[in-house]
Amino acid sequence: MLERFQVPQEDRVYVQEPKARQATEKVFLKMGLSKADAALSADVLIYADINGVDTHGVSNMLRMYVQAYNKGEQNPRPRWKVTHDFGATATIDGDNGLGLHLAPKAMDLAIEKADKYGVGSTCLLNAGHIGALGYFARQAAAKNMVGMVMNGGGGFAMLPTYGAEPRFGTNPFAWAAPARKQPDFCLDVATTQVAGNKIRLLQRMDHPLLPGWLARPDGSPIMQEEKVPEEDIRSEQRHWYMLPFGGTRENGSHKGYGLACVVDIMGPIMSGNGPGFITNKAGSNFTAWKISAFTDLEKFKDDMDAFLDGLAKTKPAPGHDRVFYAGLPEHEERLKRLKEGIPYHKEVIDWFHTISNELNLGIKLP
Amino acid sequence: MLERFQVPQEDRVYVQEPKARQATEKVFLKMGLSKADAALSADVLIYADINGVDTHGVSNMLRMYVQAYNKGEQNPRPRWKVTHDFGATATIDGDNGLGLHLAPKAMDLAIEKADKYGVGSTCLLNAGHIGALGYFARQAAAKNMVGMVMNGGGGFAMLPTYGAEPRFGTNPFAWAAPARKQPDFCLDVATTQVAGNKIRLLQRMDHPLLPGWLARPDGSPIMQEEKVPEEDIRSEQRHWYMLPFGGTRENGSHKGYGLACVVDIMGPIMSGNGPGFITNKAGSNFTAWKISAFTDLEKFKDDMDAFLDGLAKTKPAPGHDRVFYAGLPEHEERLKRLKEGIPYHKEVIDWFHTISNELNLGIKLP
Repeated sequence: MLERFQVPQEDRVYVQEPKARQATEKVFLKMGLSKADAALSADVLIYADINGVDTHGVSNMLRMYVQAYNKGEQNPRPRWKVTHDFGATATIDGDNGLGLHLAPKAMDLAIEKADKYGVGSTCLLNAGHIGALGYFARQAAAKNMVGMVMNGGGGFAMLPTYGAEPRFGTNPFAWAAPARKQPDFCLDVATTQVAGNKIRLLQRMDHPLLPGWLARPDGSPIMQEEKVPEEDIRSEQRHWYMLPFGGTRENGSHKGYGLACVVDIMGPIMSGNGPGFITNKAGSNFTAWKISAFTDLEKFKDDMDAFLDGLAKTKPAPGHDRVFYAGLPEHEERLKRLKEGIPYHKEVIDWFHTISNELNLGIKLP
Repeated sequence: MLERFQVPQEDRVYVQEPKARQATEKVFLKMGLSKADAALSADVLIYADINGVDTHGVSNMLRMYVQAYNKGEQNPRPRWKVTHDFGATATIDGDNGLGLHLAPKAMDLAIEKADKYGVGSTCLLNAGHIGALGYFARQAAAKNMVGMVMNGGGGFAMLPTYGAEPRFGTNPFAWAAPARKQPDFCLDVATTQVAGNKIRLLQRMDHPLLPGWLARPDGSPIMQEEKVPEEDIRSEQRHWYMLPFGGTRENGSHKGYGLACVVDIMGPIMSGNGPGFITNKAGSNFTAWKISAFTDLEKFKDDMDAFLDGLAKTKPAPGHDRVFYAGLPEHEERLKRLKEGIPYHKEVIDWFHTISNELNLGIKLP
């Protein structure tokens, strides 16, 4: 994570993982979720926090979920069902439950099918926010499969290359694959230049954005460092839009834009919800490839160790002391945070205490 | 395509598609390929030329294939075989044939399996150069499926983010999906900032590269416009390396790097050939998702029309007069070139006549 996204030292309150998990579960239970779904939802959020993916942990997301439940916009007890089942594939209607606890079930079904047929794939529609996609891709890796997750929907955030009107959400995707001794590979990224939640983080921490990260309302890329104006990215009057990754065409933004399209096709469109920017509905895809169906699993794991270790041992360029691979910094952060606790912004702790008082939850942090 | 990649007007020789195809087939036949494989190989090359993907057409590639056949490095009559078959998946050993005519068979098998199980996936190993991946992804789209292709191998070209030693080839991938009235979606890109063949094209045309496209041998990104030194990217003494797309970490090169890893995992490693930078062997994956297994096919096609048309009609940003989507410029170029002919560099025409004389092929262009 770039330094500008880290919580400033003086604002940090360290909370041990079990306490953070317990507090989060309490909130979900109070919202009406079943015990199992509350635990699963908390697990997905705490996964983000413990791996250093602060943007997708409790800080940004929990209060939004609470708001959605309180307004009756999210169903705490969804009766999700499989609407299409065809050999190695399925489509699941989430009955407007939170994606956090529906997505793991969609990936479980893809894994079950992959185990039987070598590859399995499911679409999920009518589900709320889904959290850090890496969690679900890693479910496949834990079962000796390669996992892919895509989630798209809504046309409020990202411009297409050369465009001046938003056509996408942040349309993230994730891939994970298992190794033996090395920490698993896990790539979990938005197709925007910067994740949506990272913009909120920059705003909260009053840090400037970098050139090529956002565009002005007329579609021109902002090519200087400046503060991000506070605004709701779903509001009518906009001060900025997001750019596809790459930023400008010369830097390959057509690739980020193209991948945003792929996510919209595999998620909202193939699930049956229609294009994100037209229907404003989300959709996801979960695909798992069973490694032993293609090659020898033990050789694959040895190869992955050699691959990942070789990447991490690449001689670094001037100005850098190490080379990473996707999943390695998260692993190191996890070991650190399991010991030291999760560094929340003090304002997040205040929120926990406020909601605890309101709802009588008895949460006391750290 | 950025203007700097186009053949200069004064160097162009226009050749009608059937004549270019016929000349290409003759060369392949002379190399010892079967009639069917020569036709298929020519079809994949001409697909690139007719769609404006000049980097992957006959100009750059045909002479390299001829060289490989002449040196006995490529098998003109491979006895390819399925080594793993597990429900919806398979692995194919290509017996060192050219990827151009093996990859369509690998995608055909994935399509056959997807038709039966909803999703199908095959790996291909021990195959030579594969050409423009979009061709194979479009095979799936033509059968009302979403197609994905990944091809990786070799560690001679691309640095990992922050690294000073190359660890990847250009590791391209492609996705395609069908629409009804709109030209099909097809994204076909390298995970490097610029495709390898585009660098050769820049060299041939003596055009400079843009900032952030390549790195110096110590791993530092080249941040100014300069000429690309002529060199073989597989040679020991290097003047430059390729950067993952995004270019620099601040511009998201960790995403391009991460996707290069995904391609290595799905291709060389999952096929059984091992990591590209260690074994220097290639591998590919072909996956097809049958749309009607997930949702109503006719609705999907209507949705795709609305999606693609909506993207193309997005209000453009200052300095641009249109917004495109992946597959649209290629479609327009195809219509143009089918009428006007393919604009080859005169030097390519010279090559055809030279080899025609050498091998007694009777080729006369245009």
